[in-house]
Amino acid sequence: MQALLDARGVYPIALTPFLDDGAIDFASIDCLSEFYLRAGSTGVTVLGQLGEAPKLDAGESVAVAQRFIRAFGTVPVIVGVTAPGFAAMRALAREAMALGAAGVMIAPPNTLRTDDQIAGYYAQAAQAIGGEVPFVIQDYPLTFSVQMTPAVIRRIVGDNPSCVMLKHEDWPGLEKISTLRGFERDGSMRHLSILCGNGGLFLDFECERGADGAMTGYAFPDMLCDVVRLQRDGQRDAAHDLFDAHLPLLRYEQQPGVGLGVRKHVLQRRGLIASAAQRAPKAALSDATRAEVEYLLARLARHDIRAALPPL
Amino acid sequence: MQALLDARGVYPIALTPFLDDGAIDFASIDCLSEFYLRAGSTGVTVLGQLGEAPKLDAGESVAVAQRFIRAFGTVPVIVGVTAPGFAAMRALAREAMALGAAGVMIAPPNTLRTDDQIAGYYAQAAQAIGGEVPFVIQDYPLTFSVQMTPAVIRRIVGDNPSCVMLKHEDWPGLEKISTLRGFERDGSMRHLSILCGNGGLFLDFECERGADGAMTGYAFPDMLCDVVRLQRDGQRDAAHDLFDAHLPLLRYEQQPGVGLGVRKHVLQRRGLIASAAQRAPKAALSDATRAEVEYLLARLARHDIRAALPPL
Amino acid sequence: MQALLDARGVYPIALTPFLDDGAIDFASIDCLSEFYLRAGSTGVTVLGQLGEAPKLDAGESVAVAQRFIRAFGTVPVIVGVTAPGFAAMRALAREAMALGAAGVMIAPPNTLRTDDQIAGYYAQAAQAIGGEVPFVIQDYPLTFSVQMTPAVIRRIVGDNPSCVMLKHEDWPGLEKISTLRGFERDGSMRHLSILCGNGGLFLDFECERGADGAMTGYAFPDMLCDVVRLQRDGQRDAAHDLFDAHLPLLRYEQQPGVGLGVRKHVLQRRGLIASAAQRAPKAALSDATRAEVEYLLARLARHDIRAALPPL
Amino acid sequence: MQALLDARGVYPIALTPFLDDGAIDFASIDCLSEFYLRAGSTGVTVLGQLGEAPKLDAGESVAVAQRFIRAFGTVPVIVGVTAPGFAAMRALAREAMALGAAGVMIAPPNTLRTDDQIAGYYAQAAQAIGGEVPFVIQDYPLTFSVQMTPAVIRRIVGDNPSCVMLKHEDWPGLEKISTLRGFERDGSMRHLSILCGNGGLFLDFECERGADGAMTGYAFPDMLCDVVRLQRDGQRDAAHDLFDAHLPLLRYEQQPGVGLGVRKHVLQRRGLIASAAQRAPKAALSDATRAEVEYLLARLARHDIRAALPPL
Repeated sequence: MQALLDARGVYPIALTPFLDDGAIDFASIDCLSEFYLRAGSTGVTVLGQLGEAPKLDAGESVAVAQRFIRAFGTVPVIVGVTAPGFAAMRALAREAMALGAAGVMIAPPNTLRTDDQIAGYYAQAAQAIGGEVPFVIQDYPLTFSVQMTPAVIRRIVGDNPSCVMLKHEDWPGLEKISTLRGFERDGSMRHLSILCGNGGLFLDFECERGADGAMTGYAFPDMLCDVVRLQRDGQRDAAHDLFDAHLPLLRYEQQPGVGLGVRKHVLQRRGLIASAAQRAPKAALSDATRAEVEYLLARLARHDIRAALPPL
Repeated sequence: MQALLDARGVYPIALTPFLDDGAIDFASIDCLSEFYLRAGSTGVTVLGQLGEAPKLDAGESVAVAQRFIRAFGTVPVIVGVTAPGFAAMRALAREAMALGAAGVMIAPPNTLRTDDQIAGYYAQAAQAIGGEVPFVIQDYPLTFSVQMTPAVIRRIVGDNPSCVMLKHEDWPGLEKISTLRGFERDGSMRHLSILCGNGGLFLDFECERGADGAMTGYAFPDMLCDVVRLQRDGQRDAAHDLFDAHLPLLRYEQQPGVGLGVRKHVLQRRGLIASAAQRAPKAALSDATRAEVEYLLARLARHDIRAALPPL
Repeated sequence: MQALLDARGVYPIALTPFLDDGAIDFASIDCLSEFYLRAGSTGVTVLGQLGEAPKLDAGESVAVAQRFIRAFGTVPVIVGVTAPGFAAMRALAREAMALGAAGVMIAPPNTLRTDDQIAGYYAQAAQAIGGEVPFVIQDYPLTFSVQMTPAVIRRIVGDNPSCVMLKHEDWPGLEKISTLRGFERDGSMRHLSILCGNGGLFLDFECERGADGAMTGYAFPDMLCDVVRLQRDGQRDAAHDLFDAHLPLLRYEQQPGVGLGVRKHVLQRRGLIASAAQRAPKAALSDATRAEVEYLLARLARHDIRAALPPL
Repeated sequence: MQALLDARGVYPIALTPFLDDGAIDFASIDCLSEFYLRAGSTGVTVLGQLGEAPKLDAGESVAVAQRFIRAFGTVPVIVGVTAPGFAAMRALAREAMALGAAGVMIAPPNTLRTDDQIAGYYAQAAQAIGGEVPFVIQDYPLTFSVQMTPAVIRRIVGDNPSCVMLKHEDWPGLEKISTLRGFERDGSMRHLSILCGNGGLFLDFECERGADGAMTGYAFPDMLCDVVRLQRDGQRDAAHDLFDAHLPLLRYEQQPGVGLGVRKHVLQRRGLIASAAQRAPKAALSDATRAEVEYLLARLARHDIRAALPPL
């Protein structure tokens, strides 16, 4: 419980690598995990949206989680267990915890509207998976169409001792971080870890507002780690300089739908996964998109040597 | 394939009975199946929304489908396989077919908007489950927020030889039936079976517009069977008289959320399931609601002896 | 203020009659008003959704409101002032009040999600129109996609002394009425009038749950008045008998989109408006629909002589 | 008609300046117009979302449009006429054209779903305002929740000779531009101007995909003009260098809700409007936000002297 409550740094949202025929590519999971660790990640989240979790069947989900957990060793792994119902959520959560997961992540179903519905949903989910399983709230209105106010998040945190972290990806969201940290200061909410998603698009300022770090799938997690570290060390300008150099590509990856393909493409270009294949439904990259990514990588390489890749 | 293409009559949407502790009540599945058959059902659909399908885990879904299939014998069973992704959909569809299901039912994810997205989704789903598996389109915008025009349905039917039936529950929907049957008459769409849901709220006229029958969970499927039969036999006034006598209760059951509880309560009152328990999330019936249902049943019993139940 | 706070009975939602060329038919407004009054209405609401309010320009809205207000004399007229912004809302509200309206009705914009957004919106609206203008909350999630819990309604009532009435049309909504009346009994909310919309589909039970009456556009407001009166007089069975006789037609009218055309058609058939014309966007009635309405009217006439009309 | 069909360059989305008491600040309209022109704008769009159009009443809308039209002289002014109904849309469109507007912009109501609904809506709107009034499609799914495929846009263009321009702000949207220009090349769609919104977040690549320029409210329209010009002149790297220098601030402004406040703040800081006041509903800028904007401006000033402002 405590490990995630105090989590800081960067938890990449892991891709799920597939072979060209759509089968899970377990070897690439190992390779990718090693890369995430080497980049300085303090944890990882698997089976998220970016990890194409809804495209796996029940057995595959367990197998992917298991492989990542093994590869990450003692570094915490959070497993996405979002499901259309509590029975499936509970089944995956309990299997993941038995395999050594540090906690689970739960996104709300996109039918929730009122504050009571949202708070009620998380209370039922926490009960379904068991009160001893640490869980992360995923607050991503752009994708899930569920709007949680800071007061609702406080209510969830208050109601559920096993709620340990917020994956913050509201947009706009900077004031939300300030408000939540204010709740901690005024004693109306206990502490929880806040890691930011939303593609990292505001990570530069999120750190300054009180976030503990990032949880997102940008293809250069090494940069995310550096920015969080620089901000922690008080090197504000250096943090922004590095972040700004990546912003053109980071923004490009943040496009809904397209982003996953771009990330798989870049990670394949970086030699970290064998294939950029996605399972259906998927959006294939056009030639124009590939060319734009190459252009962005080339421009980025002027600032960050890690982006210097051999030509296609 | 042909059995569902030519389906007529009433396919109840089966409840999934639970014991008070939330476990699946397999004995009540048998009892319920016998009741549905005795009422004159020509088929049944299991693991729909009303069947609390999203609340079951993968193994439970198979077990429930299997029990119904065994109980129904040679009478066709359609299995709901709606899932957040194609891998899980494929897994359940193939298991269901191996167990003897006649076909599967697929609702669209509530993120689909454009005509192309909807047609593309069904093409991918049909490919995922296999072209030899007959499938039913569930067209229920009120619940799924996806609006399919008649032209889009025609496109799905044209694209997918394995599309055999429409579960029609658009609202309003009478013109839609007329338009689709018009497409058959003008040769622009091949025939498929149309069974109507939406709680049966317009079944009286749906039959007259060209629907083949009903697929819904009203607690008196015996009435649905009679109305469809009377309409087929040309006894229009008699069909409406019977339908109208049930309309006050039928409308009451049709309330979103509340309806499931009312139906389980009435079926328990009729001695067909051991418990009215639902799995979470659920809406418990208030005392006022129970009293209103009793009042409606008592009024109904003046017209239809089947509603005459011993007092609570 | 007090007149609406204590309102009981039936406030029809008035149609806006047009001539065949789309011009406003002021003569029919007079005729319609006389009919509503003769039917026993205790008030009326104009410029609602059913009144095609969004299809009028600013000047036309004032003219329509003025004509109804003159025709209703001392009987209260509520004017719908829902608008995309507060300036336009304020302008119409103030003109309507100056003309003698009893109050205004405000529906929430369909972008509101959280409890805070909804309560904040009504506070801003009340301020915009002026604290001395009595207003009605329109709670119609099916059309406006905004879900207000009873607690949010209580908050609006508590925040705004000028909030005098709830147009209740949540679905399902019976428990909501019971909960709100419970708030009054436990002293956590002051009294306000509750008139029910939603086409009248649950008026039979809404009266029993504590509603003060109906505010809806069913083409036989005379029946609505009788049901409310019978329920008030304790003649429960008689109230349900009358309601049930109308339910097949009432349900038919309650179809979104189609309903407006059916109501205009029936009112034209009853000789109360010169033309059933609607402004665009509109859904024309098919021949099949007209024939179904005739059939329903003929069946209804067996129970209620008011539905006996000369053949088309 | 032809002027907008062939439009290129930058049409800023104009703010509507208010005084601190909420009254329209006509003097600042003149000042702002002069600034937009001096920056190199080839046109302007007024009464858009960013222009707080829904917060004006009917008379104010005309007055604002009139002032901008006078200030812009012979440079084309597009007037947003989006309205809840066609009568109000027609009234404003005709007044604007009479005052000298070059055309009008129409966003779809957020209830539209199917392709037919969208195409039908624009056909009705075009008829309502009159076939001689040039109109712009606003394609902004993030705000309006309406998804138009390229094929639907082609259909609107084909159906309506008066459709002259697309305000493109789908997200992602690069492929959409390529597809639409492909339609022109393959002869299936006639030419229309494409100006890009969405805050300018992808303007760098949008120009390369075939867009004619920008229509957005970024507080440095001078930069937008330069980027469009550089891209037209084939100076790709220079265009990206300039764009990238602005991207951190541009991204910051692109936050829904917050963006308007930031833009008004920056324009006030640049001395172009007297007050940053907004009408309700509004989101006030926090001190933290102001400080972040100052930091971004200071960093930007290292690359672009136009951002060098005296300290707050």
